[in-house]
Amino acid sequence: MATYIEIESADDPRLHDYRNLRDVQLRQSLEAEHGLFLAEGEKVVRRAVEGGFEPRSFLMAPRWLDGLREVLDRTDAPCYVLSEELAEEVTGFHVHRGALASLHRRPLPSVEEVLAGARSVLVLEDVVDHTNVGAIFRSGAALGFDAVLLSPRCADPLYRRSVKVAMGSVFSVQWTRLPDWYDALPQLSEAGFTTVALTLAPDATPVEEAVRGVDRLALVLGSEGPGISERWQRVADRRAIIPMAAGIDSLNVAAASAVACYVAARR
Amino acid sequence: MATYIEIESADDPRLHDYRNLRDVQLRQSLEAEHGLFLAEGEKVVRRAVEGGFEPRSFLMAPRWLDGLREVLDRTDAPCYVLSEELAEEVTGFHVHRGALASLHRRPLPSVEEVLAGARSVLVLEDVVDHTNVGAIFRSGAALGFDAVLLSPRCADPLYRRSVKVAMGSVFSVQWTRLPDWYDALPQLSEAGFTTVALTLAPDATPVEEAVRGVDRLALVLGSEGPGISERWQRVADRRAIIPMAAGIDSLNVAAASAVACYVAARR
Repeated sequence: MATYIEIESADDPRLHDYRNLRDVQLRQSLEAEHGLFLAEGEKVVRRAVEGGFEPRSFLMAPRWLDGLREVLDRTDAPCYVLSEELAEEVTGFHVHRGALASLHRRPLPSVEEVLAGARSVLVLEDVVDHTNVGAIFRSGAALGFDAVLLSPRCADPLYRRSVKVAMGSVFSVQWTRLPDWYDALPQLSEAGFTTVALTLAPDATPVEEAVRGVDRLALVLGSEGPGISERWQRVADRRAIIPMAAGIDSLNVAAASAVACYVAARR
Repeated sequence: MATYIEIESADDPRLHDYRNLRDVQLRQSLEAEHGLFLAEGEKVVRRAVEGGFEPRSFLMAPRWLDGLREVLDRTDAPCYVLSEELAEEVTGFHVHRGALASLHRRPLPSVEEVLAGARSVLVLEDVVDHTNVGAIFRSGAALGFDAVLLSPRCADPLYRRSVKVAMGSVFSVQWTRLPDWYDALPQLSEAGFTTVALTLAPDATPVEEAVRGVDRLALVLGSEGPGISERWQRVADRRAIIPMAAGIDSLNVAAASAVACYVAARR
């Protein structure tokens, strides 16, 4: 059972993991340095623990305890209990979903481990926005994708905002970082996947045709601004486009990924 | 040509339209009271003006002027020129896309005007998040929807955040508020539309089947949490579902709308 510890001061050094949650830069270095990540809200905290991540500690206001009682009963981690006002003072914002947990990151699996048994894989190149990364995980999970591979510059799926938008699907979908950006797609082709890069190039194939009949599929999505790099467009097995109304800005990457995953799921 | 006015102090009362842009509640009452809305960034400001909205004023740092010169040449509104530091002090955040404009709202058209000539209409029930409203407009516009109808409690499409996420498509897609929530769907059916409500109900028809062969389509999306109300589910002509992986949270409303619009566009 968790050890319950009442906290009386926002300066308590034991709350170190939970400080200044709105300061993205500070959080990124703090979380990397300590190998931790945060989960927020009852449902997401539960999914993190059920996904096998080991809790470092919990931070709760008294009225949030009941919803997570059975999770707290099965851990030895400390649970810091404090008023909502104090929680706001520590974190720097109003924790409106309740319950926070700090958890240990795990070593990332190899690309081979992630691909083993996968039939539908999302590959993200330099998607730098945490909300977009989270949204893509959520849509991929809902539409039957097994795994996600991230280029070295993609935003962190375990950053608090990604985790929240993904509704915890970052704990259930297999994912890792690609160690080698340059040859990532040829290596996927060699491993038996057909790489299909989503682009706005007018000579690309409509996505429905591009994925038709493909067995092991690696669906490739590019960054928010420029889309997929020239290198990746050139080495992808196929280039696909979502047909759109003329003269209109393209879909954003989260919307495009939802459409492409839907189409791919029915290939 | 715009009248250029150099601003020396963040307290200048002429900057009233641009204050505290991060304070949602204050902005909502200020904008309603004065019948204004804000556009942010060169592209979105240009689209607002080209969409026929009359500018009240512009707020620019000197280096943002060039990109909008031809817009400024064709207006009589004042253009307040100030340093980026001062702009940040007035608005309460770093205006990283440059250029702000304050524009007059116009009276909303009637539902009949919006529906005239429309073949594919989105109907939003109580979508309360500005980002989601903006994202739905953007996907709808990209995927060929002609019009959007909003239930009385939906978030404002002309709120700065909605406008930005929509990439200005709120200026090109016809939209209005439904005056009557209760009978909105039956009235659409009477007007010759087939109303198709997107739901998670397991007995609903897959969306591809539900829209097949429909001429005038009103695709109905529900609010972020509870989805479409019982009333609207009951009176919709059809109920449709996006098939999803078992045991996974549903798509969020923006992702679901992108998928449903894509499918509907190919009906």
